Amino acid sequence: MGDTTDEAGSADGAEDGTGTEHEAIMRATYRALCRHGAVDLTVQSIADEFEKSKSLIFYHYDSKEDLLSSFLGYLIARFETQVAVTENDDPAERLRETIDALVYGPDDHEAFQTAMLELRSQAAHNEVYREQFRTNDVYVLDLFEAMIEDGIERGVFAPVDPERTATMLLTIIDGARTRWVVLGDEAVLETAHGLLEEYLETTLYADADT
Amino acid sequence: MGDTTDEAGSADGAEDGTGTEHEAIMRATYRALCRHGAVDLTVQSIADEFEKSKSLIFYHYDSKEDLLSSFLGYLIARFETQVAVTENDDPAERLRETIDALVYGPDDHEAFQTAMLELRSQAAHNEVYREQFRTNDVYVLDLFEAMIEDGIERGVFAPVDPERTATMLLTIIDGARTRWVVLGDEAVLETAHGLLEEYLETTLYADADT
Repeated sequence: MGDTTDEAGSADGAEDGTGTEHEAIMRATYRALCRHGAVDLTVQSIADEFEKSKSLIFYHYDSKEDLLSSFLGYLIARFETQVAVTENDDPAERLRETIDALVYGPDDHEAFQTAMLELRSQAAHNEVYREQFRTNDVYVLDLFEAMIEDGIERGVFAPVDPERTATMLLTIIDGARTRWVVLGDEAVLETAHGLLEEYLETTLYADADT
Repeated sequence: MGDTTDEAGSADGAEDGTGTEHEAIMRATYRALCRHGAVDLTVQSIADEFEKSKSLIFYHYDSKEDLLSSFLGYLIARFETQVAVTENDDPAERLRETIDALVYGPDDHEAFQTAMLELRSQAAHNEVYREQFRTNDVYVLDLFEAMIEDGIERGVFAPVDPERTATMLLTIIDGARTRWVVLGDEAVLETAHGLLEEYLETTLYADADT
C-alpha cells in the first residue's frame, strides 16, 4: 500500500528530528522485511539496515512486535497521505485510483508482499499484529464506503449497499494479493484488476447514466 | 478443503497397507499442522502424532517439504472425492455445494487454516510448495469452469466467460479465507458467502429464467 518507500519521507515528520528518525527506522524495516521476510526478522536485522545509531531503534522499540506493529500503522498512514494527495472530485475516479493503489501500489514488490503475507499469517498467534491489521482493514473499508456513499448521493453511482460493496472490493483485492504471492504470477493482479472493473461496471456504474 | 480428517480415510487406499499408512501419515500431518503451525513444523512433530512406527514416516519422506507437498496433494484428492460423491445433476446446485465446501469445509478449523496461510506464504520461497499450490489452484479453477460451461450449455446459466467467472469465485474465496485468518472473525466467511451468492445472482443466474 501507499507510495514508494524512497519517496514517502517528505509527507510527515520532516520538520523535527523524531519524525525523521521514525521515518528512517520504518524504511529500514521495509528493507529488512524485503531481505529477510517476516518469519526470520529480528530487531538486529532491522538495525543492520539503519544508517544511524542502532541503539536508537532499541531505545524506541521494546520488541520486534512493537516495531512491526508500528510499521503496519506507518503503511496505512502513508496510504492515507497518498489518497489525500491524489484526491479527485469525481467519485468514480477516486475509487479507481484507490483500487489501483491497493492492487498495483509501488509496494507490490514481491519480496515485500511475501513478507506481508507472512506477517498476516502470524496475526492469528499475535494479538498486537491482529489489532493493527484490523485497524488498517477498517480504515480501507471506511474509505471505500465513504467514496461509494458520496457517489450515490451525487447520483453517479447506483444505490448499492456501500458496506457490502466495500467488503467485496477489499475481499477481491486481498484474494488477488494472496494468490499473487502464492502462485508467483503477476498476471493474477492484472486479471483481478479487470474483474474489479467488471464488477463495478455491473453494480456501482450500472445505473450511472440514468 | 474436503471432508473432515477423521472421516476421510475410507475413500481411498483402504484395501492395501500402503494406502492406510499414507492416510494415517496424512492425518498425523493434519494434527501436527493444527498443533504447531507450518513455520515450526518438523518431521519429528508429525511423527509424534503418528500411532504407528515413526520410522515409517522417515522411510516414505525425505524431508518436511516432501511430506507437506504430498499433504497438499492429499487435500485436493480428498476434495475431489467429496465433490464426486455429492455430484448433483443441477449445475447451480453443484456450484453452490462446491462453493460451500470451499468456504465452510470442515477443515475450516482456525488453527488449520492459519497453518495453511503460513504454508501459502512459504510458497514464494519454496518451489515444491508453489508447484503443488498451483496444481490445486488449476484443479479448482477447472472444476468451476466445467460446471459453469455445463450450466451455460444447458441454458440455465447466462453466457458468461467461464474462465473469468471461475477466477472471480476463487479470488473471493481466497480473499475471504485470508481475511478470516488475519482478522480472526468468523463473520468474514458468512459475509463472503453472501457476496458470492449476490455475485452469482447478478451474473450467472441473471438470465437463468429466460
